[in-house]
Amino acid sequence: MQALVLEPDRKLNLRQIELDEQLGPRDVRIAVHTVGICGSDVHYYTHGRIGPFVVREPMVLGHEAAGTVIETGSEVGNLHPGDRVCMEPGIPDPDSRASRLGMYNLDPAVRFWATPPVHGVLRPRVVHPADYTFRLPDNVSFAEGAMVEPLAVGLHAAARARITPGDLAVVLGAGPIGLVTALAALAGGCGRVVMTDVRQERLDLAAKLGPITPVNVHEQSVGDVVMQMTDGWGADLIFECAGSAKVAADLAEPLRPGGTIVYVGMPVEPLQLDIVALQAKEARIETVFRYAHVFDRALALMSSSVIDVKPLITATFPFEQSAEAFDRAVAPPPGTVKIQIELG
Amino acid sequence: MQALVLEPDRKLNLRQIELDEQLGPRDVRIAVHTVGICGSDVHYYTHGRIGPFVVREPMVLGHEAAGTVIETGSEVGNLHPGDRVCMEPGIPDPDSRASRLGMYNLDPAVRFWATPPVHGVLRPRVVHPADYTFRLPDNVSFAEGAMVEPLAVGLHAAARARITPGDLAVVLGAGPIGLVTALAALAGGCGRVVMTDVRQERLDLAAKLGPITPVNVHEQSVGDVVMQMTDGWGADLIFECAGSAKVAADLAEPLRPGGTIVYVGMPVEPLQLDIVALQAKEARIETVFRYAHVFDRALALMSSSVIDVKPLITATFPFEQSAEAFDRAVAPPPGTVKIQIELG
Amino acid sequence: MQALVLEPDRKLNLRQIELDEQLGPRDVRIAVHTVGICGSDVHYYTHGRIGPFVVREPMVLGHEAAGTVIETGSEVGNLHPGDRVCMEPGIPDPDSRASRLGMYNLDPAVRFWATPPVHGVLRPRVVHPADYTFRLPDNVSFAEGAMVEPLAVGLHAAARARITPGDLAVVLGAGPIGLVTALAALAGGCGRVVMTDVRQERLDLAAKLGPITPVNVHEQSVGDVVMQMTDGWGADLIFECAGSAKVAADLAEPLRPGGTIVYVGMPVEPLQLDIVALQAKEARIETVFRYAHVFDRALALMSSSVIDVKPLITATFPFEQSAEAFDRAVAPPPGTVKIQIELG
Amino acid sequence: MQALVLEPDRKLNLRQIELDEQLGPRDVRIAVHTVGICGSDVHYYTHGRIGPFVVREPMVLGHEAAGTVIETGSEVGNLHPGDRVCMEPGIPDPDSRASRLGMYNLDPAVRFWATPPVHGVLRPRVVHPADYTFRLPDNVSFAEGAMVEPLAVGLHAAARARITPGDLAVVLGAGPIGLVTALAALAGGCGRVVMTDVRQERLDLAAKLGPITPVNVHEQSVGDVVMQMTDGWGADLIFECAGSAKVAADLAEPLRPGGTIVYVGMPVEPLQLDIVALQAKEARIETVFRYAHVFDRALALMSSSVIDVKPLITATFPFEQSAEAFDRAVAPPPGTVKIQIELG
Repeated sequence: MQALVLEPDRKLNLRQIELDEQLGPRDVRIAVHTVGICGSDVHYYTHGRIGPFVVREPMVLGHEAAGTVIETGSEVGNLHPGDRVCMEPGIPDPDSRASRLGMYNLDPAVRFWATPPVHGVLRPRVVHPADYTFRLPDNVSFAEGAMVEPLAVGLHAAARARITPGDLAVVLGAGPIGLVTALAALAGGCGRVVMTDVRQERLDLAAKLGPITPVNVHEQSVGDVVMQMTDGWGADLIFECAGSAKVAADLAEPLRPGGTIVYVGMPVEPLQLDIVALQAKEARIETVFRYAHVFDRALALMSSSVIDVKPLITATFPFEQSAEAFDRAVAPPPGTVKIQIELG
Repeated sequence: MQALVLEPDRKLNLRQIELDEQLGPRDVRIAVHTVGICGSDVHYYTHGRIGPFVVREPMVLGHEAAGTVIETGSEVGNLHPGDRVCMEPGIPDPDSRASRLGMYNLDPAVRFWATPPVHGVLRPRVVHPADYTFRLPDNVSFAEGAMVEPLAVGLHAAARARITPGDLAVVLGAGPIGLVTALAALAGGCGRVVMTDVRQERLDLAAKLGPITPVNVHEQSVGDVVMQMTDGWGADLIFECAGSAKVAADLAEPLRPGGTIVYVGMPVEPLQLDIVALQAKEARIETVFRYAHVFDRALALMSSSVIDVKPLITATFPFEQSAEAFDRAVAPPPGTVKIQIELG
Repeated sequence: MQALVLEPDRKLNLRQIELDEQLGPRDVRIAVHTVGICGSDVHYYTHGRIGPFVVREPMVLGHEAAGTVIETGSEVGNLHPGDRVCMEPGIPDPDSRASRLGMYNLDPAVRFWATPPVHGVLRPRVVHPADYTFRLPDNVSFAEGAMVEPLAVGLHAAARARITPGDLAVVLGAGPIGLVTALAALAGGCGRVVMTDVRQERLDLAAKLGPITPVNVHEQSVGDVVMQMTDGWGADLIFECAGSAKVAADLAEPLRPGGTIVYVGMPVEPLQLDIVALQAKEARIETVFRYAHVFDRALALMSSSVIDVKPLITATFPFEQSAEAFDRAVAPPPGTVKIQIELG
Repeated sequence: MQALVLEPDRKLNLRQIELDEQLGPRDVRIAVHTVGICGSDVHYYTHGRIGPFVVREPMVLGHEAAGTVIETGSEVGNLHPGDRVCMEPGIPDPDSRASRLGMYNLDPAVRFWATPPVHGVLRPRVVHPADYTFRLPDNVSFAEGAMVEPLAVGLHAAARARITPGDLAVVLGAGPIGLVTALAALAGGCGRVVMTDVRQERLDLAAKLGPITPVNVHEQSVGDVVMQMTDGWGADLIFECAGSAKVAADLAEPLRPGGTIVYVGMPVEPLQLDIVALQAKEARIETVFRYAHVFDRALALMSSSVIDVKPLITATFPFEQSAEAFDRAVAPPPGTVKIQIELG
């Protein structure tokens, strides 16, 4: 079939490729409608690898996807042709120890779309396990359905934070993951989010998404802002979404005694952590890896309008202009959050 | 001073009464502005007692209050004359074992406004510990401030439920406590609330407050509705707010495996509980008693517009018409939720 | 093969029966060595049914088993012929929603040994999934291995109780489940257990198993004992293991504020629960159903001598005397806890 | 009175000093019997300071203490002259925000014995709040009572770890805190502890205290040992008690997916933390600061013989030889864990 293929030499071609499309008894076949471009897609395009994952064979890109069921396996009961759906891109071994404990995201054998050597979904059709395919509520569009995957990262972080209603959260970094984490934190019980970045246009966008106080760290210290807002007590939660070892290191100061830090971003370099400063506040630190068991929750929150991801979708390209979409994503104009490609 | 006094013979008089008004070093003196009428105030008025608490001496009614600080004790640092505030009506012994563990609401020595023999606040001024007095954000009115107390019941229940973002909650009973619990459950992370009652006008009001699905149990079974909404899986959470032993007994059916029941309402009669049916789903059951550590959280959620209690305030009476306000509360017109009295 | 078969007319015969013994790729074949008799085996023998589970076809009894691996499926990596093992008797559908969430014990499709129509293991050989087969440490005997199943019930209850080190627990009922729950509670962090029963010989046995304070409720009130031990504060935890609606109903009194009740026993009749008394202490109630993810934990605690189950094994019969073993279990002499049958 | 006084010039004298000994209504006066020497006492002796805490005025040393009540304040109900007791050395402000939330150890206003400018208890008598004074069970000696304070550090760490019964824990560092943490982890539910150090005599001692597997990291890698013990899965918990930035940094490898790290030791230098490696296992990290609400729990576990601290008491000196005791503590013979001083 026709697909957006990244070659080992980092060329990006919309071209024919043969893909295994066997429909197992617990699988569904899906006509792909919308696919969002993720930072990891862009990174494979520009670098040909992410850490140990190297593009050695031609690979279809894309893992944030929604579409329509067109065929179902013999044992699939809850999905039917015509169902509009979104898909969870990582398929674990259900018999692994981690999966059986309910932590399938930590199964080292997970096969994840557009992570070498697994093909992604920038192509017209894909076969996927029904258990990792989720029906879209009527009031959730394909475009929103393709936003479930990035939102899931934020929701998983919010779930592991164990928010108490009314918590004040700091979200460090207003990139796509920071923004969905802020939305998830508010949906998950926070009363207010303080959001930091140095890109003013990102902060301006964030401030329109809900009770979010933007802090441009070129102008203000987040610690000062938080301490003023809380009579010197500190923030209940800090979500690190900047992925910078420098930003991620110095988090004890704005935290309240007994507060929690969640590391969502993935800094390449080791952190310099002052453990004694964290101990003085008995900080709890959670680290998160992708998500588990949250796609249905994301859809419930979208369907009830608790979370609105539409302001995060900046531009949409037709499938034939996939290369242009990626070039835009490589050098995004200010204010760009999510670029999507429509196949349907 | 002039106060709304309930006599032991259940007469209600706006009359002069002498009240101890010593200002301790950690206290503030407050000019009371708005007081909401609670079901317990009405119950003392109509029955002269609640369980073991009997009105044997004249007692001032009212415990849902907001006002303005007019004087501060010598050791009070965080409040100043002119501050608009609301007050937590139960004052524990800070040295009790429960208080030291952080569960001050469970201290048997708590002194609670308008619970015999402690006077309430339907009176122009009151002295109160600064630690249990909370500054209102600028965008929160006195009327909303006087709603913090009932909202705190719902928020405490939501906190103890340990909501996972996107949970589906059932709230049984659309009285004032059911309604604030629904608001708190949504603010605390639920994606949708299914709300039951037999009073259609209450359900109609509830449906306007957010993603709330009303179920008139004269017409539909809540179990059927929930199972249809969840493909036969069940609700993540059930908040029992009806306070009826009959309603409160049969909760295993609409619950999902591993779900949670929170008993907020206080049924007079013992429940008939089928423990084996609950075990088959490994239900967790939480019981709650008033609230602890939630007034500041309620204010944060009001101030950020995550929670809007204004639709719950049905009518407001001037202080001089307090008796009329109580008579209205005793026989409320359909759709009545909260009646408040203004002194300021 | 030769097996202990319960006939639909409640006759118990050691006789030939044909059993499906297909070895799947993820299965192991086990030579059964030791099988304990459970109360449920006895109940099927004496009543022919447990609730909705009716013995309509001949059924092999027994589900508490240990043995030796004699053959392994093609995909089994962690077990080998000659390995001494014990087996988890309930096999869930790994793809069910409950299983994927990590709660496989709540999967309604679980197939459980010696629960109609599934055969048990009082027979020389059985095929079982490797994932539910656990290698015995060298210092754990077959007899102890066959005790892992009942101990797992207690350990699962202890895990869900979320014990804080040094907690005082009350265990109501000194039957086999009460005794393993007491051992599990102590292993899981409790500093002391108060154990109740009316059978003095059971209490005498319990008192020898660790820091267990026996209370014969014919002579003393458990509330009085606990309040005296705790300066009037109450027990942190109560494990209900009597399975009697009467015992299970009145648990608020000995509980501390903020304490937890775990319902392990399964009372046939509904409880009469005074929810208001529980609310005054903000009791948390956990219900448990069998166990999940605890067999390896039970073995670790046995192997390190933290838990010693040997004093609970009262008598051992050879396979040929299985009928005598069951007759002893039906009318056990005082002090009998566990009767086992040896096939190996 | 006569006391062991550390002078600002780091001289240590047993000499007369005048101390305020006012008995408040909620206080008790205690005849001190036994005081253990802590690493912090030694550090003040050898360095004259710990971080920002500098010995500028003569200061009595010692904060691990047991003794006998000799006088009680007018409002003290639960203690009486003659009661044998141990004392919690840090006294918080009960009205602080942290204290009211139940986290009094995080109150910055805590006054802690033998932390400048607060005097310690190496002196015959001390006045202390009854709320922080705990009656010793009859079978707990003064020497054991004086061990409650260091044990409390381990128990608090074990409580915050939220152990599941049967967990495998690694304890890094077999110093006094490592040893009490190992005892606490086992008492709190662990099935086995793997303990590391380079001092073989410490490891030999540890191996006698319970199911503790010693690992001399000069000879073996803890990761290798743990992975072999767990079929490549990893340890459930890691308690960092070495206080070395080097040891504390590299903890992802031996941890299981979903495991927990507790930082008990206080490394002076910042850690180099590979957050991505921790994220791949979704590690939870808890930091702890002293302890709260555990003295009664420590006594319960000692009294029931679940924890035996006696093997950790290496030597006892009379009060007159306090200087010799400190010199021994400064240069301890191999195998030394705790040195105590007896005044009674």
